[in-house]
Amino acid sequence: MQENIDPWGDVQAGDYDRKMEDFGIDPMEPLVDRLPKPHKLFRRDIVYGHRDFGRILNAVENGSPFAMMTGLMPSGQFHFGHKMVADQIIYHQELGAEVYVAVADIESYLTRDMPLEEAREFAVEQYLTNYIALGLEPENVNFYFQSEGSTNYHTMSKLFARNVTQNEVEAVYGDVDPEKLTSALTQVADILQPQFEERGGPKPVVVPVGTDQDPHIRLARDIASRFSGQDFAKPASTYHKFMRGLQGGKMSSSDPNSYIALTDDPEEACEKIDRAKTGGKQSREAQRKHGADIEEDVVFELLAFHLIDDDERLREIHRQYSEGEMLSGELKEIAKEEMRSFLREHQERREEAHERMQEFLARS
Amino acid sequence: MQENIDPWGDVQAGDYDRKMEDFGIDPMEPLVDRLPKPHKLFRRDIVYGHRDFGRILNAVENGSPFAMMTGLMPSGQFHFGHKMVADQIIYHQELGAEVYVAVADIESYLTRDMPLEEAREFAVEQYLTNYIALGLEPENVNFYFQSEGSTNYHTMSKLFARNVTQNEVEAVYGDVDPEKLTSALTQVADILQPQFEERGGPKPVVVPVGTDQDPHIRLARDIASRFSGQDFAKPASTYHKFMRGLQGGKMSSSDPNSYIALTDDPEEACEKIDRAKTGGKQSREAQRKHGADIEEDVVFELLAFHLIDDDERLREIHRQYSEGEMLSGELKEIAKEEMRSFLREHQERREEAHERMQEFLARS
Repeated sequence: MQENIDPWGDVQAGDYDRKMEDFGIDPMEPLVDRLPKPHKLFRRDIVYGHRDFGRILNAVENGSPFAMMTGLMPSGQFHFGHKMVADQIIYHQELGAEVYVAVADIESYLTRDMPLEEAREFAVEQYLTNYIALGLEPENVNFYFQSEGSTNYHTMSKLFARNVTQNEVEAVYGDVDPEKLTSALTQVADILQPQFEERGGPKPVVVPVGTDQDPHIRLARDIASRFSGQDFAKPASTYHKFMRGLQGGKMSSSDPNSYIALTDDPEEACEKIDRAKTGGKQSREAQRKHGADIEEDVVFELLAFHLIDDDERLREIHRQYSEGEMLSGELKEIAKEEMRSFLREHQERREEAHERMQEFLARS
Repeated sequence: MQENIDPWGDVQAGDYDRKMEDFGIDPMEPLVDRLPKPHKLFRRDIVYGHRDFGRILNAVENGSPFAMMTGLMPSGQFHFGHKMVADQIIYHQELGAEVYVAVADIESYLTRDMPLEEAREFAVEQYLTNYIALGLEPENVNFYFQSEGSTNYHTMSKLFARNVTQNEVEAVYGDVDPEKLTSALTQVADILQPQFEERGGPKPVVVPVGTDQDPHIRLARDIASRFSGQDFAKPASTYHKFMRGLQGGKMSSSDPNSYIALTDDPEEACEKIDRAKTGGKQSREAQRKHGADIEEDVVFELLAFHLIDDDERLREIHRQYSEGEMLSGELKEIAKEEMRSFLREHQERREEAHERMQEFLARS
């Protein structure tokens, strides 16, 4: 019996190898060399697994059309956990993907009681503005709200009900109610929309997700292969590891001490780093002798996921820190320095991005 | 525990009083005198029950806006069972109702495996053409296909998922699967759409149905009162008795001997009447002595539901037939005469209607 991962429940970080085996996710590592200028999230095995990502690579290599699709459930401030997804969107856009970003406002209304207007404001002010500041070119992005999807988009989401049974939905989600079923079918329409006839028909589409979102991918793949009204390629997916919260444990939008937001004041962000959990030893002497336990260090995670692009530099920090040459206080100084300069620069870009975003929304 | 009536299962004709009591349906009879020129279906207690129909009468009396809404699941030929609904649509239009006709093509796709194109053809060639030939003025009718509903219509149908639990859906339908849930929520949007903000907001809306469709009405009324995004008046409903098939038992689209279609050749229709079940006695002598059992007579039903408008004339036939003055062969001659002239006239009007319908569809 397979373990159920509930995408609406707690995130289960770690133990990625077992999950890959359980769910039939392939390792990303053998494919990374085929990527042009692989992004650090790929180089560092943070995007660790995939389904059918080879089809995306073929499209990149052949210059044939492909798409990247992601959905967002707006909640709270845009933080470094969200940035990881943004970085993948932007990287896929650079690879030539047509980009689809669905704001799951129907889903957040149904499963989180969030009014549609509130979802809209969060999505625009937090997500879209930061995406653009991080480098997304909005001009050819399909950025849309579920509640404003086309007639065909909504109709297709309903027709998909014929391609799944109640038992299958229950097997994927553990339980099912009208809200979850409606949200799930709408999300399947989000994932398959890039392949709708009016969008040019079947093509490779990749959806970058965390492992906990895999049930949605499997549902979309099953429905893609069963639907009889038109052909669909099974959507591909990539799986990334989760960043932990600054205190270890889960990063949570409801606990501002667990994350750094991209709109945090730089000095406030540095104070959060000062308070963050490290893998360094209790005493200077023990650290010098045994080195840090890097697996337990969320500050090193911040460097590896976000703040240091240069692999050589990161490797050297890893060596020094794990061998005890570097103390956790010194590691934090590096992280604070990088964080300060990243946030200052990003927050400047954010102001320009705000204008571009408003132009973009006025046009679309 | 209430009895479940399955709107997708067999129609349970008869025993109307018990159903009214079980489901809280009020008798129509006390309200009929308030109707201007009450239609024979109301005068003869064929439309026997209602919920909140008083609100419709108030709107008629005050000249304030109200709507009539009906849905159709296209299947087979348009017969005298369908005509009963058409007559009610047309009568409500004459009373001043704004008319909404939803072609439930998403529902027939999900619950009857009918391709959308086939549903469209049936709906237009069979239903709409006959509606117009029977007297519907198409100009201000909202005739639409679920699959072509607006973005807001589909989004609302999805938001309604928050206002009903899985248990409630199961309690209404006996069981539930993704197809039924999706169909049910879409139908609720059909019923509440006349009250959407862009349609002028809350107003009295009546939905004429058979008793077996009452679960849909109750679901729509519950959701109308629970939805928090805008106000809805609980939809009103009327309940009609079912015509039986020509052989007694159920009238079924899959058995052409059980019904007369409005496109049947008049002579063929007369042959069906010749073979129909009557309540007359086996021998002429027994009939003269005891009279007919009119409750068992589907030919008399045809006269009462459709073919004879004049109450005095119908009452006289009823008297003669039940007292034995009239034989069932004589009753059939009356029915055949009326049927012949009805079908000839209707089929002529159908040709004009076909042109008007195409003009109407081209405009809408």
